[in-house]
Amino acid sequence: MSENKVLIRKKVVVSVGDLKIGGGHPPIIIAGPCAVESKEQIVETALALKELGVHILRGGVFKPRTSPYSFQGLGIEGLKLLREAGNAAGIPIITELMDEKHMDIVNEYADIIQVGSRNMYNYSLLKELGTLEKPILLKRGMSATLKEWMMAAEYIAFHGNSNIILCERGIRSFDTYTRNTLDLAAVPIMKKETGLPVIVDPSHGTGIRELVTPMSRAALACGADGILVEVHPKPEYALSDGKQSLCLEGYKELLKQIEPFISI
Amino acid sequence: MSENKVLIRKKVVVSVGDLKIGGGHPPIIIAGPCAVESKEQIVETALALKELGVHILRGGVFKPRTSPYSFQGLGIEGLKLLREAGNAAGIPIITELMDEKHMDIVNEYADIIQVGSRNMYNYSLLKELGTLEKPILLKRGMSATLKEWMMAAEYIAFHGNSNIILCERGIRSFDTYTRNTLDLAAVPIMKKETGLPVIVDPSHGTGIRELVTPMSRAALACGADGILVEVHPKPEYALSDGKQSLCLEGYKELLKQIEPFISI
Amino acid sequence: MSENKVLIRKKVVVSVGDLKIGGGHPPIIIAGPCAVESKEQIVETALALKELGVHILRGGVFKPRTSPYSFQGLGIEGLKLLREAGNAAGIPIITELMDEKHMDIVNEYADIIQVGSRNMYNYSLLKELGTLEKPILLKRGMSATLKEWMMAAEYIAFHGNSNIILCERGIRSFDTYTRNTLDLAAVPIMKKETGLPVIVDPSHGTGIRELVTPMSRAALACGADGILVEVHPKPEYALSDGKQSLCLEGYKELLKQIEPFISI
Amino acid sequence: MSENKVLIRKKVVVSVGDLKIGGGHPPIIIAGPCAVESKEQIVETALALKELGVHILRGGVFKPRTSPYSFQGLGIEGLKLLREAGNAAGIPIITELMDEKHMDIVNEYADIIQVGSRNMYNYSLLKELGTLEKPILLKRGMSATLKEWMMAAEYIAFHGNSNIILCERGIRSFDTYTRNTLDLAAVPIMKKETGLPVIVDPSHGTGIRELVTPMSRAALACGADGILVEVHPKPEYALSDGKQSLCLEGYKELLKQIEPFISI
Repeated sequence: MSENKVLIRKKVVVSVGDLKIGGGHPPIIIAGPCAVESKEQIVETALALKELGVHILRGGVFKPRTSPYSFQGLGIEGLKLLREAGNAAGIPIITELMDEKHMDIVNEYADIIQVGSRNMYNYSLLKELGTLEKPILLKRGMSATLKEWMMAAEYIAFHGNSNIILCERGIRSFDTYTRNTLDLAAVPIMKKETGLPVIVDPSHGTGIRELVTPMSRAALACGADGILVEVHPKPEYALSDGKQSLCLEGYKELLKQIEPFISI
Repeated sequence: MSENKVLIRKKVVVSVGDLKIGGGHPPIIIAGPCAVESKEQIVETALALKELGVHILRGGVFKPRTSPYSFQGLGIEGLKLLREAGNAAGIPIITELMDEKHMDIVNEYADIIQVGSRNMYNYSLLKELGTLEKPILLKRGMSATLKEWMMAAEYIAFHGNSNIILCERGIRSFDTYTRNTLDLAAVPIMKKETGLPVIVDPSHGTGIRELVTPMSRAALACGADGILVEVHPKPEYALSDGKQSLCLEGYKELLKQIEPFISI
Repeated sequence: MSENKVLIRKKVVVSVGDLKIGGGHPPIIIAGPCAVESKEQIVETALALKELGVHILRGGVFKPRTSPYSFQGLGIEGLKLLREAGNAAGIPIITELMDEKHMDIVNEYADIIQVGSRNMYNYSLLKELGTLEKPILLKRGMSATLKEWMMAAEYIAFHGNSNIILCERGIRSFDTYTRNTLDLAAVPIMKKETGLPVIVDPSHGTGIRELVTPMSRAALACGADGILVEVHPKPEYALSDGKQSLCLEGYKELLKQIEPFISI
Repeated sequence: MSENKVLIRKKVVVSVGDLKIGGGHPPIIIAGPCAVESKEQIVETALALKELGVHILRGGVFKPRTSPYSFQGLGIEGLKLLREAGNAAGIPIITELMDEKHMDIVNEYADIIQVGSRNMYNYSLLKELGTLEKPILLKRGMSATLKEWMMAAEYIAFHGNSNIILCERGIRSFDTYTRNTLDLAAVPIMKKETGLPVIVDPSHGTGIRELVTPMSRAALACGADGILVEVHPKPEYALSDGKQSLCLEGYKELLKQIEPFISI
């Protein structure tokens, strides 16, 4: 199937500081709010997650929103707050890059750079990211075939950077009960075809808070190298994606339920 | 969400002889070939599965094939062979009903009656099955919304029969790597919305033998009440679905891999 | 592409009384309400349509509804009313068959038998219809591939009846603006691959009254052999599908707009 | 439905030199090869199209290809060749922009800037294009909902540029017969909801040369303000998309078939 020339089924282990992802290392947890909203919100979340147990802190600062009239993120100011929160808790951070213009500064502040679903086909951006050494988390496009996703990773790798983590986040289907259809078969397939670590985002993958824990369990049971979940101290006040965010209590319950698969 | 009047989130336990399915009982395994092909094939499979461990024997005798020129199944003759095999191994049997004309005889011979994907919208058939007491396994239509699937179950229940097991078997999407896209979020959703047991068919759900074991693990990890898998003593000679069938060796490996979730 | 053995790209002309459908004959219009609701409603509609211009009267009497609690149609009583209306207006009638049990009586009363989307994969029904000489209108399944649709027609033809009219009625997609996604490329493809006449149902194909006329024009412009539209004298009181039904005034406007393509 | 604040159903007419697009003006034809391959190829095509009749010349120079190992376009060199060809034939040109880095030079050379399907969600790029006065052709994302597409246009308009032409180019579905599923209902819907001109690309929309003419007819019959078709003097030698490109003879036949809808 694969026509890759760089990502040729050889196991890739991605290092973030001392943390190893993929290649048989224990699965990891990336957690945090959809968006960085304020210093208080992100630092409080980081410290609380750290205490409960987490590997990496996430938080969006450049937000690709469907409407130009929705909250677009705090931008560079938010990036600095995220870094501050990561430092306060002593954990690495990940955030999304939407625009080449911000690549240098995001590369300076973040430990992993995320390419969101809407930019999986943004080959100009992928090529630029290929020139970095920084780990890249590449989300699957919302209706990308597995082959297109493989080739998007190959764009980055071909331009020089094989530190890639793939992230399944649900695909678009005809059903409207869930926000997306989480395609877990992608986990064993993409691991085998590319050799890269594959993690799963059950928050976007379902859009429903109650499904985050069962789908995290399913993801880990079929071999995911980690999960990426949205956690907000007060989901009801979140500026985006509140419905799919766990509160801290919910995160605690998640950790309990995935305990057979993961060690924190 | 649900507009059901009979299946109103109250837990339903389905009994097949002494076996209990759903409502917190341990998950079960239904296994067997896609189609009953000969007495030798089905009896040999039944005895081998029984020895390795299985709860229910499956085998198709009326086959809904896309082409009128493909093998259409052994019909009533096959049904009797399946019964014979079930008896020889001492395990209950399940087979698909496509046509009201055969309802009485299938009801006489089978322990569970399956409604296949292609007939989920066949409301005439669903109404007739509602008049039986026999357990019905209702597969999800290949592009049925969860709500349509709930309502299809409600058709059977409304006409008097609540002994229904739901079976997620993958939905149609734009991707062609797998035969279908296995929608595991359906498991916790349908369990909650209908109260019925929900099992998963990773064989049709992926169409790829190598994915049956990881997706079985995922299904059980998110709460499935069982799995339905295709097993053929010689998949390379199977008259249908050989590519997605496990051989007996593969079935043994599956059992080992799902051991944390299931007890045989 | 095609693996058909009977429908092998040879042009088929379907005759309904003196009316010829397909094979280069002028396109036809099938119109009428989603469901037969009362004698008054169906006779009034038939006479009004006849006066404005129409070739065939449609009306559902057995209704495949998603919910068992929705109006299920008037059944055989409705079938007789439809016949009466057709006779009063002097035009042939078409209605849907859902259940083999009713095949003989529907065959007796109707001039064309419709197989609805939900029954396109009901191979038992298709085989039975293959034993008749009556014209069959075979709707595309809501997520049937073109190849599956070809093979469904082949089931009927293989069992002896090549008087088949295909009807594109929209497929299921991720978008929710329209009820279905009308796939008009199916028109030239299915005409070429099967030789059968292909008509289009823009009412179900869009679910939106305002789109019926532009999509009828599009259908005819790419070669459709006819259109099937829902018309109700009082759409706001229709027992089903009111939102997509034209009123008589709307039907008049439709006729005006498709005048370059059709002669009434 | 619409939550737009700028594109609020008021008719927008886009001017390209003396040419008017949308708002009731006669439909236009944009034609040319998928990619600019050489000076000879693009000038020859431009002159031939001009002689047969065409409004705007298209040609890709930055190509968003699924694989990094496919031909990526001639880049700025190709842009200059395209301009030369447009000048030689005396017709305006359109080409795709993938990367903000090239915005100034594409703005300098091209008369219309195209945003391809893969970049419809590239909000950074859309915002930048909003700062220009140049007409923008915004293709629908390959699985974008109509609402997302409206909002993408709104991003451009909100940032100051309402000279937008929408282009339906087929969406992703489960069927594999055609490359995409051409969603013609989008034409009347998007015209009404945004007021913008809407054109149709039947070449990408079907991926099959034989379908370009019937689907062009269908598009124009339901109100499209133009069509965009791939034409290559020698499709069998095209570096990309040869299968869906018309040869010059085919283009002539297209013009004949759409003559009732268009004046050249």
